[in-house]
Order: sequence, then structure tokens, then C-alpha cells
Amino acid sequence: MNDFGKIFKFTTFGESHGKAIGVVIDGVPAGLKIDEEFIQNEMDRRKPGQNEFATQRKEADKIEILSGVFEGYSTGTPISMVIFNTNQKSRDYNNIKDIFRPGHADFTYQYKYGIRDYRGGGRSSARETAARVAAGAIAKLILKEIGIEIESGVIEIGGLRAQNENFEYAKKSEIFALDSTYEELWKSAIIEAKKEHDSLGGVVKVRIKNLPIGLGEPIYYKLDNILASAMISINATKGIMIGNPTSHTLKGSQNNDEITKDSFLSNNCGGILGGISNGENIEFEVYFKPTPSIFKTQKTIDKFKNEVNFKLEGRHDPIVAIRGSVVAEAMSACVIADMLLLNMTRTISNIKKIYN
Amino acid sequence: MNDFGKIFKFTTFGESHGKAIGVVIDGVPAGLKIDEEFIQNEMDRRKPGQNEFATQRKEADKIEILSGVFEGYSTGTPISMVIFNTNQKSRDYNNIKDIFRPGHADFTYQYKYGIRDYRGGGRSSARETAARVAAGAIAKLILKEIGIEIESGVIEIGGLRAQNENFEYAKKSEIFALDSTYEELWKSAIIEAKKEHDSLGGVVKVRIKNLPIGLGEPIYYKLDNILASAMISINATKGIMIGNPTSHTLKGSQNNDEITKDSFLSNNCGGILGGISNGENIEFEVYFKPTPSIFKTQKTIDKFKNEVNFKLEGRHDPIVAIRGSVVAEAMSACVIADMLLLNMTRTISNIKKIYN
Amino acid sequence: MNDFGKIFKFTTFGESHGKAIGVVIDGVPAGLKIDEEFIQNEMDRRKPGQNEFATQRKEADKIEILSGVFEGYSTGTPISMVIFNTNQKSRDYNNIKDIFRPGHADFTYQYKYGIRDYRGGGRSSARETAARVAAGAIAKLILKEIGIEIESGVIEIGGLRAQNENFEYAKKSEIFALDSTYEELWKSAIIEAKKEHDSLGGVVKVRIKNLPIGLGEPIYYKLDNILASAMISINATKGIMIGNPTSHTLKGSQNNDEITKDSFLSNNCGGILGGISNGENIEFEVYFKPTPSIFKTQKTIDKFKNEVNFKLEGRHDPIVAIRGSVVAEAMSACVIADMLLLNMTRTISNIKKIYN
Amino acid sequence: MNDFGKIFKFTTFGESHGKAIGVVIDGVPAGLKIDEEFIQNEMDRRKPGQNEFATQRKEADKIEILSGVFEGYSTGTPISMVIFNTNQKSRDYNNIKDIFRPGHADFTYQYKYGIRDYRGGGRSSARETAARVAAGAIAKLILKEIGIEIESGVIEIGGLRAQNENFEYAKKSEIFALDSTYEELWKSAIIEAKKEHDSLGGVVKVRIKNLPIGLGEPIYYKLDNILASAMISINATKGIMIGNPTSHTLKGSQNNDEITKDSFLSNNCGGILGGISNGENIEFEVYFKPTPSIFKTQKTIDKFKNEVNFKLEGRHDPIVAIRGSVVAEAMSACVIADMLLLNMTRTISNIKKIYN
Repeated sequence: MNDFGKIFKFTTFGESHGKAIGVVIDGVPAGLKIDEEFIQNEMDRRKPGQNEFATQRKEADKIEILSGVFEGYSTGTPISMVIFNTNQKSRDYNNIKDIFRPGHADFTYQYKYGIRDYRGGGRSSARETAARVAAGAIAKLILKEIGIEIESGVIEIGGLRAQNENFEYAKKSEIFALDSTYEELWKSAIIEAKKEHDSLGGVVKVRIKNLPIGLGEPIYYKLDNILASAMISINATKGIMIGNPTSHTLKGSQNNDEITKDSFLSNNCGGILGGISNGENIEFEVYFKPTPSIFKTQKTIDKFKNEVNFKLEGRHDPIVAIRGSVVAEAMSACVIADMLLLNMTRTISNIKKIYN
Repeated sequence: MNDFGKIFKFTTFGESHGKAIGVVIDGVPAGLKIDEEFIQNEMDRRKPGQNEFATQRKEADKIEILSGVFEGYSTGTPISMVIFNTNQKSRDYNNIKDIFRPGHADFTYQYKYGIRDYRGGGRSSARETAARVAAGAIAKLILKEIGIEIESGVIEIGGLRAQNENFEYAKKSEIFALDSTYEELWKSAIIEAKKEHDSLGGVVKVRIKNLPIGLGEPIYYKLDNILASAMISINATKGIMIGNPTSHTLKGSQNNDEITKDSFLSNNCGGILGGISNGENIEFEVYFKPTPSIFKTQKTIDKFKNEVNFKLEGRHDPIVAIRGSVVAEAMSACVIADMLLLNMTRTISNIKKIYN
Repeated sequence: MNDFGKIFKFTTFGESHGKAIGVVIDGVPAGLKIDEEFIQNEMDRRKPGQNEFATQRKEADKIEILSGVFEGYSTGTPISMVIFNTNQKSRDYNNIKDIFRPGHADFTYQYKYGIRDYRGGGRSSARETAARVAAGAIAKLILKEIGIEIESGVIEIGGLRAQNENFEYAKKSEIFALDSTYEELWKSAIIEAKKEHDSLGGVVKVRIKNLPIGLGEPIYYKLDNILASAMISINATKGIMIGNPTSHTLKGSQNNDEITKDSFLSNNCGGILGGISNGENIEFEVYFKPTPSIFKTQKTIDKFKNEVNFKLEGRHDPIVAIRGSVVAEAMSACVIADMLLLNMTRTISNIKKIYN
Repeated sequence: MNDFGKIFKFTTFGESHGKAIGVVIDGVPAGLKIDEEFIQNEMDRRKPGQNEFATQRKEADKIEILSGVFEGYSTGTPISMVIFNTNQKSRDYNNIKDIFRPGHADFTYQYKYGIRDYRGGGRSSARETAARVAAGAIAKLILKEIGIEIESGVIEIGGLRAQNENFEYAKKSEIFALDSTYEELWKSAIIEAKKEHDSLGGVVKVRIKNLPIGLGEPIYYKLDNILASAMISINATKGIMIGNPTSHTLKGSQNNDEITKDSFLSNNCGGILGGISNGENIEFEVYFKPTPSIFKTQKTIDKFKNEVNFKLEGRHDPIVAIRGSVVAEAMSACVIADMLLLNMTRTISNIKKIYN
């Protein structure tokens, strides 16, 4: 079940150390100007090897469009994009061929399928998220057409929570920090964890601006439950909180967002009521566990049920949340694009606008 | 988009104060003994009016099976179940006909659809969850066939978090409390909130036991992201945390669950690795905002954009999380039933088991 | 898999001799005036017992709307409709409890599911099509909003093929005959077949008028392949031919429809090119086998594999195609409604029409 | 909507003269031996340029697997396959840039999407069917595991209908002729049509052997209606007849297939009752219109609504049905693979076989 979405629907494929990873996006409306530079730029924001706070593995992540675009515009046919894997180093992985790395999907893939591509985690590798970013870039191009913007940043690392949220700052920060005051603290914590051969967890905040009222399809394709599905499908995510993450500790009188004729007086609901956007900013937080790839000895077993003391080697992110924020943005864009299209069909008056 | 699931797929319908609410469940395997008493008992666990910690509105919530069952067994055809609304009191709602209650979906339904059934929230009412409980009861009957159990309870109310988790205790508690020590504190907090015409938020914990290894369909129909989708589709939920809710604050060495030949040594991952069940208990928490229906004066607008000071009347739950736990269980059961069926098709060796 | 459609999506439920049959329609745009008289009238066109050319079984087929309509208009929530079975006479069927009637689904349901509701064919009964007609009536109400019309009639019975097509005549004909010249011949053939305790096959023609250009979603949700799916899902259908049913015998120069600036010069393609409507009338024929329920002795087996000489009793249509034409219309309407909604999302320019 | 199937689900992409065409197949069970030679051989059966009865355009149609296969076996992750276009000759098409070729999708694509890749028909080209054949090859590998076979051949060309059906003969025939007696007649007719710059229609017959009883998911995912959907989705198809194509002219007593304890005594139903396979051979015919690409002057318009007398140049099949039979086989295999997987989930007893 490697597809996501109803109308704007994408399917990803590919393994970490296979020939290529890629995505096919169905349902892209025709007539969209396809800005390849923008797409590659989105890829570059996610790609590894850019600084000491991410894995040192290098991947060009060069996107190649195979279909669906003609003379610079989408044609309404599937847009397929491929990224050929260039830095595979499969030899790195021979030592983990039969071993289940703790915190990884090795164990469950082996038991579910009876076979797995053990090289770099195969399909369960976070490398798959590059394909999501490509899909998200197309989605963002759609959203731009009507002025919707998505931004994100890191709001917590290693249990240290930011006091401020500055999305403009995050865009320029090496670690996508939402709070300049915490940036140095967080960087030190990451460097420290790396020294200890350990890793850190973190929290990403996403904000969506200029959304029309009305996106979201109750009861089971609500804006919030599909955003939740999208976020928790990202590698290493463990939770999501929509709107004010302390709402469950509040009283109704504190949590309800009162309404005036100009706007809502607060946004505890994160811009979503009854699963439908209310015109305020959409806001939610995504919780990432620490990278399971650490360089300390851990107890585990191999596929023959032998117990082993295992110590990983290789190159890995000391924290998933940072590059994860780019993926969270991309998935958000895909959800919103889908909701935008679905909502067009929801009233007779819209039908008449299109066909009369 | 009122359906949920791929193979075990249900569709709900109905408004709070319409003639009936109901559900059609497609994909129920044939040959399942349909225990109607069990189904009604599940309905009764959720139904309102049972004690002072829930709304005083009375609904019999009597389930009637219209199809799909023959001589006590499922036939493989859609099982439809209807609950006729008996306690509608539509007159209660005439005063809110044009008003958008803060924290409710009135505003967004009106703007999205241009029309709404304002009586008791119409389709956006938590009354819809009765239909989910009916679907969940059928799902549970399937799960019982291979010994899977689902249990739940309340782990936090009004910001007060339990220290212990006793699911057996919760089953008998009026407020489904997981911790007997906190039960009285929580009850007092609820009574207090009611006196203040206010409401409380809370957190529900769900645990699924005896799950086979291998359930969950990567990459976009993982066990965890679909559980997240299911949970956040429930009225008043704001978040979900899977496994240890503090994982994002831990280091990799603390969070990774080491493995021995007998079992995992911890369960921070909540029984799910790479979106697939690992054979440990599935555990997650669901965060509910306080009931938006409070009896204090609040600022809002009506559909003509007039500002009004609004004070709600009627009968409402002082806290959604309690009865919400029954719904969370039901939705979990539906997700697991679907994953159970999907996973059957995942290997050639299974194909041969069935067809040879 | 009892649902049909992507956006305008309906799910039917119910067995021939169960409590009720019904349908839940998701994706009906809000703001549609729901004309209940029109819906009931559509039901009445299909209902049995109206003349000697159909089964003498009487069913009121009284439709009851349970949800999704408020103050006479659709609200965007699921419209559920139920028909309670009133004329069940289950005793009629005890003699066929264990027997597989030739030409019926008894055999396959028993082997697939291991259990079946044998009363009147249970779920496989053509009675299920009443629910489709209810869904089709809602679809037709949508189509009327922009002037799309669907009509149908019988073009062949017992191998006798009409020479003319008069859809207006068919509307008033007892047997929906498209050709008045053939009507008496066909009626005689039916009466004759009844006397012989036998049944007849036939062909229905459907025509859809005033369709906008552009409906149909290549490559696998084309207008023609989904119409084919819809038609062949109807009980007793064996084939479909789109446009000119002899196209496969023609040369390209005979079959191609030339184009002028005003219109196409012929319509061999049946109004569909590349799976997309071209603005001409949609035309296709649906082929129905003779009713399998005949009153002659036939060889068959029971579920214990005993061979028996079986003679059916009861009341059955001497020909399925007549009432089948109403079902073909209904399914066509559902397909078109779905295609109409899907097509709205296909261009950036439409997005701007709705959101700017 | 470029995907097909529920569990065994594939998505195709690519334009006739774009960089590549391809397919992503989701839901392939893990542990399937992937015989690349077999796959390429299937591609070769469909590929153009092999004799004078097909287009002289040459395409290597070399398949490249990008993902989902590890050490020769499927891993349960998406299998993606790409065919890079090598013989594009885009210059051939500049003269038809603005013109709507009669019988082609140019007109409808332009009106639906407002833009189209005019080179060789772009997405609407039959070249897309190469991707289907690749998917079908994987499906066939699954079917082989339990002995299911699919075969096909041409049963009618230019209105001349075969008297015999010899599927073994067809496999070796240049034109996949089912009847050796007719082969020469048909070849002459094709040569004749080519001389006249014209084209011919034809009929393909497909037969599926050794199918288990029970495949097909009533009511809207029946074996027959999904086969119909699959067949009519193929370029240039106009109709399908399941089982005996004259059933609609027969009486019930002639058409019903009587049953003995060993087998059915006839197979007018084409192996499908109530939408479910009955264990007999599945048989159906697919009707192809003549190739719309002919080399005679025809009236048409360009996209500016100017009327033109248009004469096509280039290389085209004189008849679609021949190579179409390979595509019909491939699509049949995909349908059956999907039905095989779906049916596994249909009984509690199957659940117990897998999980206990």
C-alpha cells in the first residue's frame, strides 16, 4: 500500500540501495507550470551530507521527470519522477545481512515477508522520503497557484523546547531551528550525542497559511486525521498534536476559540473544526524518536534467533527530526492538494460554476 | 468520505437528530458467529446517560441488524446495522439554528456545504460514534477468533496523569479509570468542572494484546499511521502518541528496544516497527480536548456575521475522553481487522496455503 | 466490495428476503433539491408485478430516506435509503435450500463463502438492483442540474432486433420497446416463452444526452470502461457494445467519425474517444441472458453433491432485459455523476474558478 | 486515474514519445521468483515491428526493473519497471500538432485538459499498453504458482469469423489466429486493407484455465464486471461478450448450464455465475474497432476550429486486435491475480488457516 491520496494520489517505489527510488503522481491538474528548479531545490533541502548535524552520506538526489510534463506544463497525465541511487556502497551492509538492528524495521520486514533487502534498510529506509519530497514539490506548485504556503521548523530537540517560533528564521537555520536562542544549545546537544555515539529525538512544527475555509472531508477523510496519517507514515515519527498541544489539560472555557466577525480570537484548534479548515493557520507538531542507528553495542538477535551483541557502523543522522521537517512539509502539501481538489466537488453551486 | 478501511471497510451514515444513524460493513469474512448480545453490550458501554460523569441525555442505542447475517452467521455480504434515534428533542436546538457554537463544527460545515443540519450538531455530532462502536463490535468478533484482545482506559483527566495502568480495573470503573488512586481525584475534578459549567480534557490509553507479528502495510498503510488516522477521526481528539509518549525526549540508546530470542526487552516502540506489528503489545495514547459544549457565555457569531454573546443549554458530557475510550477501542478493532485481512495476501506461501 | 464510484460513491446492502435492502450514497454535493416523488417514481418504474411481462411478485418498493437530507436539500453528508422487504414468502424457498439452481449464483456463493442465504437468491438476487435505482435517482437529480438526460429502451428480444429507435415511445411502452413495430412481436414471444415455462434474453440500449465534453478519467477510469463495469455488474448481463455494435466488422475509413466545426459527422464511437466524452450522445447496448429461473426440469446437484432433477416453482420475470433497462439507466447515471465530479478537478483553471 | 486493482494494484505512466513509459506494481506477494526472461518474452510478444501485419515502427521494449526485487525474488515492496523510449521520431508528428485525427483521442484530450502531448498520441497512444504487459507478466508469474493459465487468440477479422478455436495454434501464428483455416483469408484481408490505406477491426478471445472456484467479489467487483472494465480500458476496444456471445438470443432452457457432480454440462456462462468463478474455463470475447490511423484523406478540424482535409502519414498497425490480444491476456492476468488475493480474506476458516 505504497500510495497516498484520493485525487492527488502518489505512489512511491524503490529501495535505499536499489537502482532508483521514485514516485508517480496521479491527479495533477493540467496546466500547472512545472518549475524544475523549485523541485530540485526542495530535494536539496532534504538531501543528506550537507552539514555536521546530518548524516555524512552523500547523495545528489538529482530528480529526473519521466512523464506527465509537456513544454513545461503538466498535461493531466501521471507525473513520474526518478532519482537514481548513486552512493550505494552495498558492501557497508554485509555485516548486518542477517541481523535485526534494534529500533529498525529489519525484524518486522523479515517476519512479515520472509525476505528483505537488508542493504541500508531497503524499502524501510528514510531514503524513501526523497520521493515524498518530490511529490510534495509538485503539490506545493499547485498550492502556490492560490497562495497557500507551508512552512516548518524544529521546536524541540532532546527534550529542550523552544520558547519562540520564528518560521522565517528556521528557513535559514542549518538545523531548521524555530528559535534562535535555542539553536546553539541544540547544536551542542547534537554534537555531544554524536560524541557519545548516540542520537536525539525532536519535535517539528508545521504551519499552513492562507488556506480557504472548507478543506477536509468528514467523517473519515478529515483534514486532521489525514494529516495525522501522513505524518505518522514518516519514518521515526511517534506522535502528532494538532493545534495547542496542551488542549487536553485545559478546560473547555480555556480551549474553545471564540469567534468575532473578523476572525477567531485564538487558535487552540489549529485551524481545524470538525475535520474542516476554518480559515485560520493550520498548526501541528510532529514527534520524532531518536535515530535508531547508534554506534553503541546493543543486544539483538539474527534471523536464525541467535543472540548477538551488535555494534553498528556507517553514516547516520544524529537526529531525524531536522531533515524530517522537510518531509513533514512535503506530506502536508500533498494532503492539502488532495483536500483542495476534493472540496471542489462538494456543492451544486460549484458544479454550476464549472459546467455552466 | 464516510468510509474507513480497505477490506474490512465500513461506511457510517446519519445525523444526531435525523431518523437514524447506522453503518454498513463490507468485507466481513463469512462464517463468523454474530453474537448480538455482545454487540449490544458494546453499544451500552458507549451509550449516554449512565452516570453523572456523562451527559444525562438518554438514548437506548438499540442496534438492529438489517442484512449480512443468516442463521446467526455472517455470509460475506454487507452487514448493515441501524440505530433509530428515539430521544431527539429537536426543539432544544432551535435557539442555535443560526449560531456557530465555539469549538464546534457549526462554522466549518456551514461554510463548506452552505447548509447544515443544526440539530445537535447534525452529522458532526459525537452521536455518529455509536455507528463506529457497532462496526468495532463486529471487528472484535473477528479478532476473538484468533485471540486478539483490545482494552482501554483513561490515563489522564484535566492534566492529572495516572501513575499506574490497570486495564482490568478500568473495565469496572464508572469512568474507565486506569488508576484507582486517581479515580476519586478525577471524579472530583469532573464534578467541580460541571459546577463551574465548564468541561475537562483527558487522555485515553489503548492496548492491543496477542497480535501476530506482521500486521501493517508499509509505506502509507502502516499500522501506526492508520491507527493515527482512525484515532484523530474521532470527535474531539487532538493528538496521538504511539508507544512511549516521551520517546522524542530520549536518546537512541534509551529508546531502542533491545531484542533477545524470547522477546523485546522494552516496548518504547509500542509494538510497531517500520509500521508493522512486532508481536509485543500495541500501545498508544489518544488526546481529547475538553468538551466544547459548555454552559458559560462565550463570544461568537451567527451565520449572518452578527456577533453574539452565546450561552449554551442542554445536556452534554463534562468530558469526552471517558466515553471516547470505547470509541477508540472500536476504531482500533476495525483497523486491526483490516490489517489482519490485508496481511493474509502478502506472501506466496500464504497463497499456497489457501489454494493448494 | 459492495460499493461503486470514487466521489459519487454508493454502497448497497441487503438480501432478497432479509429485513431490508438499502443504499448509502457518499459524495452527493450539498444543496441538491431532493425530490422524493421523483425517486419513488424511479423505484416504481423498476418494481415487479406491474404487468404480465414481468414477475407477478408484488413489492411496494417504498423508499425511506434515513439521512443526508435536511429541509428538502442534500447536506453533503451520506444519503441513506432503505426499502423494507414486505413480500418475503420465505416458505417458497425451503425446497431449494440445498439445491444449486442452474444459471444462478447458488453454486458459487456456497463454494466461495461456505454459507449462503438461499431465500430468493439472498444477496445475489436481482432485488439488490432496487437499491441501485435509488442511487441512480439521486444521480439523475444531479445531472438534471446541468441538463444531462439519460434514456433507454429494449432493442432486441429473443433474437429479434428492432429496426428503429424511438426513446420517447419506449418511455410509454409496457415493455420499454424502442420500436413500436416490434412491440407486438416481442410481447407474443414473451407470452409464448411463458407458456413453455421458459424465458428469453434481450438487449437494452442506453443513450445519454447533453453531456459536456471531457468526462472520463484515462487510463483506467475511462468513461467507457467504467460504464462497462457498471453494466456488467448488473444481474444477468453478458456483454456490452459501445457505439456502433458492428464497428469491429468495419474498416477504419467506415468507422472513423469525421469532424466539422459544428459536430462529428457520425457517431460510431458512441460519444467517447480515448475514454473521454466528445460531446455527442453516449450510446451503448447491454446484452442480457434469458432469466435463469425457468419452470422446466433441469439437471443439477445439491450441496452434498447429489444429482437431482430440479423443477423450480415461484414467480419470475420471463425476461430480465425489460426491468433491466431501468437498472442500466440508474447505473449510467451514477457513472456520469461520478465522472462529472472527478472532471471538475482536472485543470488549474478550474481550481482558480472555484477558489479565486 | 492511472491505477488498476485493489490489492494487486498497478499504476502506469508515460507518453508515447516521452522519455519513458513504465509501471509500478503494488501488492505483489513476497517470495515470488521473478523470471526476467519470461517478462521480456511477454514484452516481445506485444512489441511492434515484427511482421507485415503490424506497424513497422521498431521499439526494443526492453524492460528494466528498478525496485521490488532482491536476489531474484519479490520482496513485497512495489515492483517498478521502466521502458525507455528509443524510437521516438518526434518530427513525424509536427504536422499533426494542432489537428484532431478522426477516431483518436486528440479532440477529447485537448478539450478536457486544455493541453496535450500531440506526439504520437501522447498518453492516449497504445504504446501505454506495453506497461500493462509488464504488469501482466508479473501477474502471470503469480498465477503460475497455482497452475492458472491464460491464453488468447484472434477469432474474427474484418467480419470473417473463425469456425474453430485452437489456442495452441494461435500461440505460434504470426497473427495469433485461433483457426488455421481462416489464417490465410485474414492475412489477405489485412494486406488488402493496407493497400487501400485502410484498416480492419477484429475480435479477440481469451480463455483462463484451472481457476479455483470462488474468485470474484460481488456486487461491484465481480469477476465479470472487472474483466469488462479491464478489457474496455484497452485502446480501441468497443465491446465484450462473456461466455457464449449469443446468450441474449437464447431461451433459458438453452442457455442455463446444467450441473452434474463432476462438472457443468455446458459453459454458456463463461465460467462465471453471480460474478464468481465456478471452476469452468473463463471465456470471453473482446471487440476491437479498426485502427483509426488510416492513410486516406478525412475531414477534421484543428484546435482553432478550422476545417481541414487531413491525410495521416507514418507507420501504424493495419489492425489493432492482433497485438491487442497480448494486452487482453495481460489485463486478464492482472484481474485474476487481484481476485485471487482478495478471495483469500473471505472466510473465517481462511483466517484460521493463516494465523493458527
